[in-house]
Amino acid sequence: MTTETAAASAAFPLSARVRSLRSSAVRDLLRDAQRPGMLSLAGGLPAPDLFDVEGLRAATDAVMRDAPLTALQYGVTDGQPGLRAALAVLLASRGIRTDAGQIVVTTGSQQGIDVIARAVVDPGDCVAVESPAYLAALQVFTLSRARFATVPVDADGACVETLVDRAGSPPKVVYLVTNFGNPSGATLSRERRVRLLHWAVANRVLLLEDDPYGELRVSGQPQPSLYELAGGIPGARDWVVYLSSLSKVMAPGLRIGFAVLPAWLREGVVKVKQSLDLHTSTFVQEVAERYLASGRLAERMPMMRDVYRQRRDALVDALSRRLDGRLRFNRPEGGMFVWARFTDGTDSAALLPAARELGMIYVPGEAFYDEAPDRSALRLSFATAMPEQLDEAVARLARAHDEFRGRQEPAVAGNQRVAGVSEG
Amino acid sequence: MTTETAAASAAFPLSARVRSLRSSAVRDLLRDAQRPGMLSLAGGLPAPDLFDVEGLRAATDAVMRDAPLTALQYGVTDGQPGLRAALAVLLASRGIRTDAGQIVVTTGSQQGIDVIARAVVDPGDCVAVESPAYLAALQVFTLSRARFATVPVDADGACVETLVDRAGSPPKVVYLVTNFGNPSGATLSRERRVRLLHWAVANRVLLLEDDPYGELRVSGQPQPSLYELAGGIPGARDWVVYLSSLSKVMAPGLRIGFAVLPAWLREGVVKVKQSLDLHTSTFVQEVAERYLASGRLAERMPMMRDVYRQRRDALVDALSRRLDGRLRFNRPEGGMFVWARFTDGTDSAALLPAARELGMIYVPGEAFYDEAPDRSALRLSFATAMPEQLDEAVARLARAHDEFRGRQEPAVAGNQRVAGVSEG
Repeated sequence: MTTETAAASAAFPLSARVRSLRSSAVRDLLRDAQRPGMLSLAGGLPAPDLFDVEGLRAATDAVMRDAPLTALQYGVTDGQPGLRAALAVLLASRGIRTDAGQIVVTTGSQQGIDVIARAVVDPGDCVAVESPAYLAALQVFTLSRARFATVPVDADGACVETLVDRAGSPPKVVYLVTNFGNPSGATLSRERRVRLLHWAVANRVLLLEDDPYGELRVSGQPQPSLYELAGGIPGARDWVVYLSSLSKVMAPGLRIGFAVLPAWLREGVVKVKQSLDLHTSTFVQEVAERYLASGRLAERMPMMRDVYRQRRDALVDALSRRLDGRLRFNRPEGGMFVWARFTDGTDSAALLPAARELGMIYVPGEAFYDEAPDRSALRLSFATAMPEQLDEAVARLARAHDEFRGRQEPAVAGNQRVAGVSEG
Repeated sequence: MTTETAAASAAFPLSARVRSLRSSAVRDLLRDAQRPGMLSLAGGLPAPDLFDVEGLRAATDAVMRDAPLTALQYGVTDGQPGLRAALAVLLASRGIRTDAGQIVVTTGSQQGIDVIARAVVDPGDCVAVESPAYLAALQVFTLSRARFATVPVDADGACVETLVDRAGSPPKVVYLVTNFGNPSGATLSRERRVRLLHWAVANRVLLLEDDPYGELRVSGQPQPSLYELAGGIPGARDWVVYLSSLSKVMAPGLRIGFAVLPAWLREGVVKVKQSLDLHTSTFVQEVAERYLASGRLAERMPMMRDVYRQRRDALVDALSRRLDGRLRFNRPEGGMFVWARFTDGTDSAALLPAARELGMIYVPGEAFYDEAPDRSALRLSFATAMPEQLDEAVARLARAHDEFRGRQEPAVAGNQRVAGVSEG
């Protein structure tokens, strides 16, 4: 925000909650991604070349042929019954046994986080989030005026021990991306999942399990969801909300998310959702229902995983080859992101203009922290680029790092901040 | 909420804001509306027989043929640029001169209310609403923990004088449905609009002008919007937000609303919207853009107004003929609702079961009040029924009233409450 805008806003009655919001660095970077020749590893977008245009066109045609008046009219707040039934089938394939009556359809899983926050979080309540965390979740909880407790993330996901061993009263909610975290790429280990569940039941803490990427596993063994594991722990089902969406496997433009809710929470969530937008577009719900019923998603998943595997491998190989020793990074078993750190402490936000100049962008890691950001970290998405583009993007990043280090000397790298990612 | 549910919920950590929410009586009544033979005047739905299925099918086909990857991918938070440009053209036809850069697309105008509330209202802030008011707006402001001030409504809309003459500090926001209010059917007079604007500028009060029904004027002279009038009053444009939607004239299932915002508010609203759901479905935005570009909406408006005029006349005539002297009601110049009161003080919620038994339903007026409900009032929608169905529905209402009065004697009518409209 420029000084001028800040001064003008102060004179007008913006709410305290909106004044505390940051703009999303990721979405601001999307503008740069449009520049000709730019290789963007900054996005959080799924691969458009994998959209099943033919299948979705058939589903759309079927809706406008067979049920136009239903699709164009107001619908029920918790979601079209047919779509909820189809989602229950999809969830069963993930080991999540539920029925349509437990599901609420949301406008993307983003809105799922918001409706839960509003139904549960009072101002000043503590919400535990991973560090680094999914940026837009931080935003949502900020809007609900939550306080944050942070849980560090390592190769096995959120360090649940720090929660369990933490002094003082427990948080009200723990928000976790359990598979291939955004931005960490890490997956929560089974041992930690079980420990977290026992602790949540004992301390009456709501676990918000956000799983947009679980279907995009390209190597390693799937972990059972918190929801599934909760079935074996008395009382645990009351303390798990499972959130997911069709955005990463079908199409984000539909904005279809869904929440599997414990009984005590569902009525409150539906009332909140009703106040927010009455319901999610009936039209896109009807399209999604027909697409799921067609069976094409299940047919196409192996192909989609192959493509994502090739891209992950291309990015990881390029990083190993071109930035060996300079970057430390994970090798995620799925999802869309590699999380990396400069071993020499290079400030990734300060480096960004140099990288942009050479035609590649990424998201500086500082965007994903509520506090104490790791300024040497960065998030790289492999989802939308071809293998050869990923290699070239990493080559440009390596060149930018070379040049940046040359310019920084003799100054100590990491001590300078450049407003590479603007706040609005 | 039943006692059992309330007890269970108390043991689980629902937020204070959600505990204070009521369920929508209107949406609860929708279940009754599905019963065979039921004549429902309770809905707030537009007439599905007026949906332009052919035109919307053509728009959908064009999207999936010409721009599938755009429509299926993530979009920008403030709305697809093409749709915003098309909305600016639509707005110009209403006398609202704006440009695409001032518009933010929302998931129905319901979400427009929510994003404004979150961007402006701090807990404890005072929001002035009409009495009776649009129920879901009361819900949204309740979620933001607003206090309410109520403004009575008469034949010329909200009694603005009560605001202007009110002692104490002014509210932060005034929320008004300016044309054919829901439920009142009343339209704010030009004199009151001008007076409200002068007062808002002098007192730095944000006017939230909600106009979902303005295009559905079937008689009388259109009133200029607050937004248009504000152009002639220095400083007033900063204090008006114009909200509307395509739900009542195109199709509610798309969930396309839009807000025209003053510059100081737009950035905050976009940040809030980004946190809520990232953006409204790209797919339905692209469909709406193409439909607006086709020119069919403008072509069809006269026909749509004719149909609504016939239905309004049929309802008003039936009420005059069959309940003369027993009901006092307005003759709205457009929109979807007639607001009526029993002159003998009959409690409309207590009467509802008798009416339902005879095969007609309406919404008891008490649902539309934050405080001091008029229990003799009821809302009747003429939007979705044929003229002869409206006549028959009113005949059933008259019969129910006869029977109810017979049963009530010798007890004084209006002193008994029946839980006709449940809270969830």
